[in-house]
Amino acid sequence: MSPVYLDNNATTRVDPAVVGAMLPFFTEQFGNPSSMHAYGASVAEAVRKARQQLQALIGAGFEDEIIFTSGGTESDSTAILSALEVMPGRKEIVTSAVEHPAVLKLCAHLEKTRGVKVHIIPVDHHGRLDLDAYRTALTPQVAIVSIMWANNETGTIFPVVELADLAREVGALFHTDAVQAVGRLPVELKSTAIDMLSLSAHKLHGPKGIGALYVRRGVRFSSMIKGGHQERDRRAGTENTPGIVGLGMAAELALKFMDETKRIKWLRDRLENGIIQRIPNTSINGDPQERLPNTANIGFEGIEGDAIPIVLSRLGIACSAGSACASGSLEPSHVLIAMNAACGAVRFSLSRDNGEDDVDRVLEVLPAITEKLRAVPSAGLCGRGAEQLHSGPGPSGTIADAHSGAVRSSST
Amino acid sequence: MSPVYLDNNATTRVDPAVVGAMLPFFTEQFGNPSSMHAYGASVAEAVRKARQQLQALIGAGFEDEIIFTSGGTESDSTAILSALEVMPGRKEIVTSAVEHPAVLKLCAHLEKTRGVKVHIIPVDHHGRLDLDAYRTALTPQVAIVSIMWANNETGTIFPVVELADLAREVGALFHTDAVQAVGRLPVELKSTAIDMLSLSAHKLHGPKGIGALYVRRGVRFSSMIKGGHQERDRRAGTENTPGIVGLGMAAELALKFMDETKRIKWLRDRLENGIIQRIPNTSINGDPQERLPNTANIGFEGIEGDAIPIVLSRLGIACSAGSACASGSLEPSHVLIAMNAACGAVRFSLSRDNGEDDVDRVLEVLPAITEKLRAVPSAGLCGRGAEQLHSGPGPSGTIADAHSGAVRSSST
Repeated sequence: MSPVYLDNNATTRVDPAVVGAMLPFFTEQFGNPSSMHAYGASVAEAVRKARQQLQALIGAGFEDEIIFTSGGTESDSTAILSALEVMPGRKEIVTSAVEHPAVLKLCAHLEKTRGVKVHIIPVDHHGRLDLDAYRTALTPQVAIVSIMWANNETGTIFPVVELADLAREVGALFHTDAVQAVGRLPVELKSTAIDMLSLSAHKLHGPKGIGALYVRRGVRFSSMIKGGHQERDRRAGTENTPGIVGLGMAAELALKFMDETKRIKWLRDRLENGIIQRIPNTSINGDPQERLPNTANIGFEGIEGDAIPIVLSRLGIACSAGSACASGSLEPSHVLIAMNAACGAVRFSLSRDNGEDDVDRVLEVLPAITEKLRAVPSAGLCGRGAEQLHSGPGPSGTIADAHSGAVRSSST
Repeated sequence: MSPVYLDNNATTRVDPAVVGAMLPFFTEQFGNPSSMHAYGASVAEAVRKARQQLQALIGAGFEDEIIFTSGGTESDSTAILSALEVMPGRKEIVTSAVEHPAVLKLCAHLEKTRGVKVHIIPVDHHGRLDLDAYRTALTPQVAIVSIMWANNETGTIFPVVELADLAREVGALFHTDAVQAVGRLPVELKSTAIDMLSLSAHKLHGPKGIGALYVRRGVRFSSMIKGGHQERDRRAGTENTPGIVGLGMAAELALKFMDETKRIKWLRDRLENGIIQRIPNTSINGDPQERLPNTANIGFEGIEGDAIPIVLSRLGIACSAGSACASGSLEPSHVLIAMNAACGAVRFSLSRDNGEDDVDRVLEVLPAITEKLRAVPSAGLCGRGAEQLHSGPGPSGTIADAHSGAVRSSST
């Protein structure tokens, strides 16, 4: 039985064409692009091409709006720290309760050590942002808003274009962590008020260790990693040229395969509907309408978040766990807690590498697994909360039912 | 004529065995090492092996003393910012005038924005640290000393083991930027008082975009890039697993080929002696005794720093320029200025990839090139300072002559 990889929000397989594009830059064109000899010049040209490939994917107005970094986390830190530095008169940050730790942990640290005030905008039980709270938090004291484009756990998409317009009205910079969105949704930055955007190659079939920060022309900027003149003085350190070339090729392929999104969404819906129909007391976490086409976050009542992924892993199926509980072995998910979601959830995230067989394999094995886990409480039953759970849709349920908004127990 | 690469202090060719080790981690073992399924577990094991390979190269006491970063510059920033954060009562930094910009630019920024006092220890005309000034600067106000192990431009080696002992006496942390030393000199950290050390894979035939920061067990630490729990909460962001595996293999090979150092030194000496003997008014920059075995920094009186590398590049020979002048097209070298060195200099830096042919090719073409450049002042003559230069050794000079300590003109 060939393995089934359904954890593409964690990381994706590098496309073989990406590896092929990278290879010459290890052993042949290995020069330092800052060098003025021939070894450097050809590599500098390759970096330029990669910048243009990425520019095309995100619809940036200018290639010099792209700064290559070591990945999404560095990009997030860079954006937020830069805003605080270039706007010393503003000491507030607006973000959401469901951001990636790359944003939330930095914000908590800045609050503790630099006296920055952080507004954490809540979400509803579908993971949708509280727009009233967002509007209230926006004042001329805000240096930067950092709100993700799409959530890594549930796939919920935030209306970042509109949020950016509102931020601009109070003179705040708008940053979005778009690592889960870029390559999966059409992005056209030049027609928006988004000032900064983080992305990561390894979420779009590119290599790990490389990402980018988009910084709109005209936005004042202060680098986080200081030193040499690389990236026009905006990110010091010898350029990761194979990684940059790989990100460029990954961007080109993501644009080329953007239509695959429809097929991926069809597969995802087949998986979700199949689970809801076959397994009682299951529900879909996330925004019913605005959700990444590749992500299914499914709550299994009475089963802890990590139980199903552990059993599936033994069968060669990779997915990931989310839990609103602190009772299990798994760290609780701040996203599911913020959504007031049921205790345990499983995330299946697809990519263009997946086919119908992958989905069908999950649907084939999952009913028996959940039945067994529910029959043996000690093996996978959610410690707290399980008995408080409202009933989700039964075997005949549909996604619409799952999204009907049943109030779930909080486990905090 | 096959190309000659003598710019290994800028970057090195990735060893094909390193590329071979990395390859499976792009398309086969592409999992996220933080994932708990099988895709993650095998990669986590590979990361552990790489950490041990690197531990062996630098003689660290424990593998958990190694934090993987995106490279030397990030490691430098992390070390310095961490020290200031964990010792808020100490507001001073000690560094040298010839550090890499990764250290000096950060220090300048901290001085400007955070009121940190930075002591910049001068060097003499051989690039040797002023030990009296160093001792004077060391007080209980110093949070961290950051002094490089070996200089990137001249190869001059600083006595970091002794410097670290002195720093410890006043309770300051000692960090060394060792990107040019690791893999070229024996390093045995566990027998020293060095608290933190930066290294970079691409200087030792590993890939760009990956490096490490050694942090001695027991040294308090605060991460620079915050977010996920990677690297035991000390460096957030999905691990660059192919890069880490590549750095591990590069470390293993560096240890295996450490004896090559003798051959490389022989080649370097052959190059230096050949130039000094064949070309009048040339001199060696750097410490006559304590110098990296692979680095030759040669001053050519009356010729601007970039003129020779440009001509050599046309002939397929890669080296790099250093200049103490601001008159040329090249940015002046703060290292040569700190050494009060002559106007223009050329750096040839070797590696285990080089052979006798490479050196002989340079020796074959260089005399005619320098003669031509000196004959056409506008083409390559150093604007300022050339006429003030003291005579270096003539055609019969030796390295000993070159190191005899002639006072050179300052061009600042």
